[in-house]
Amino acid sequence: MHGTIVDVPGTKEGDRVNFPSYPHEVLAVVLSVRDGRLCVLLWKRARSPHRDRWALPGGGVESTERFREAITGHLAAKVDVRDVAHLEQLATHSRVDRDPRARVLATGYLGLVPSDVEPDLPSDTAWHPVDELPRTAFDHHHFIDAATGRLRAKLSYTNIGFALAPLEFTIAELRDLFGAALGYQLGATNLTRVLTRRHVIDPTDRRASSGQSGGRPATVYKFVTRELTVTDPFAVLRPPR
Amino acid sequence: MHGTIVDVPGTKEGDRVNFPSYPHEVLAVVLSVRDGRLCVLLWKRARSPHRDRWALPGGGVESTERFREAITGHLAAKVDVRDVAHLEQLATHSRVDRDPRARVLATGYLGLVPSDVEPDLPSDTAWHPVDELPRTAFDHHHFIDAATGRLRAKLSYTNIGFALAPLEFTIAELRDLFGAALGYQLGATNLTRVLTRRHVIDPTDRRASSGQSGGRPATVYKFVTRELTVTDPFAVLRPPR
Repeated sequence: MHGTIVDVPGTKEGDRVNFPSYPHEVLAVVLSVRDGRLCVLLWKRARSPHRDRWALPGGGVESTERFREAITGHLAAKVDVRDVAHLEQLATHSRVDRDPRARVLATGYLGLVPSDVEPDLPSDTAWHPVDELPRTAFDHHHFIDAATGRLRAKLSYTNIGFALAPLEFTIAELRDLFGAALGYQLGATNLTRVLTRRHVIDPTDRRASSGQSGGRPATVYKFVTRELTVTDPFAVLRPPR
Repeated sequence: MHGTIVDVPGTKEGDRVNFPSYPHEVLAVVLSVRDGRLCVLLWKRARSPHRDRWALPGGGVESTERFREAITGHLAAKVDVRDVAHLEQLATHSRVDRDPRARVLATGYLGLVPSDVEPDLPSDTAWHPVDELPRTAFDHHHFIDAATGRLRAKLSYTNIGFALAPLEFTIAELRDLFGAALGYQLGATNLTRVLTRRHVIDPTDRRASSGQSGGRPATVYKFVTRELTVTDPFAVLRPPR
């Protein structure tokens, strides 16, 4: 199907699109902190090519669907993931031989699932720590690298942590989630200072039911908003006030 | 051409890609500071649809080309832009009716041209200030908005300014370039402090030939590297040293 000229019947000369067409797929890098580690959702291919390798969920785009609808549908139908708290486009890969069967263009998405959500995964699907990946299919490791990098960067200048965290949490729990996602431990004091000063998280009037190490129960926090917001757009080159 | 099933002859059952195909185009938002204002390169459409509206340069993707090769080729062939100092992918738009002729998927790129480069533009092509755009074709304004936002964000946490600046410049010149790109004026002292502390720019041993207002000639600076580098990846949530 490479190089096909699209000629729409009944249109005037000049009123046509003469761009080559390509099969297009959407793929999702669904990340979540599981057992204290940042993990990605992968399914094991049962057929060639790349039989037995682990692949990202995804598939084609129907003629009436936009990408976002397509990837949301694939996640619900194939891996029963319906509670993606945040979804954003990563990039489109165009390497000519990225699929050995045909030239397929692929648009990747980053999806985040809160740590307390337990999707009912099919038997061929599992969470894998991103720092200990099995052999992946096609060019899917490039999408996973891009997704991990995007998440880590955005933890610093947006409120994206809301999509990894339960609705309510203690600072100790949030520190562990951030540590798992970033790949290094943060101090709870610094994290609290940064996130409250920027009004990213707020204390509630509730306390955790069991205090740590017999101390008094910890304050329960929540994210102020659960829509992506840039909290520090100009780290240095700030506009004048 | 919607919904076409790709069946590669001679492959085994299962060894085929059954994703619908779509015409695909690449588009470039080429930005540059011209006469002290951030501008985008647009060409005026001579034919329907959207005749007489201003459009981004771009076109189809040949079967052996990756996107980056395709957009580089279109820029060279159609608007004679060969000196793009930085090029990065923005996003792929999939709205079903974004082109009235057929469903066309479009991948946008951000390209930056230094302020002292003068491409030899065709007669239908011109630089337009991004804050005073003429009526644009298709969904091209979405790509222009995304490109402007990306540039402004990256000026704060990367060395991307190298792609807007001449090889050598005074601090006053760089301050004006950053001010044009960001849309607000910065103090030269603060800009110098931030960019030298992060080792983004370096003083040379040369002085500008004519000093400002009869003062002594200003020091000439250059960017340390002219490849994109993230200079401040974790504005706040820094890894431990």
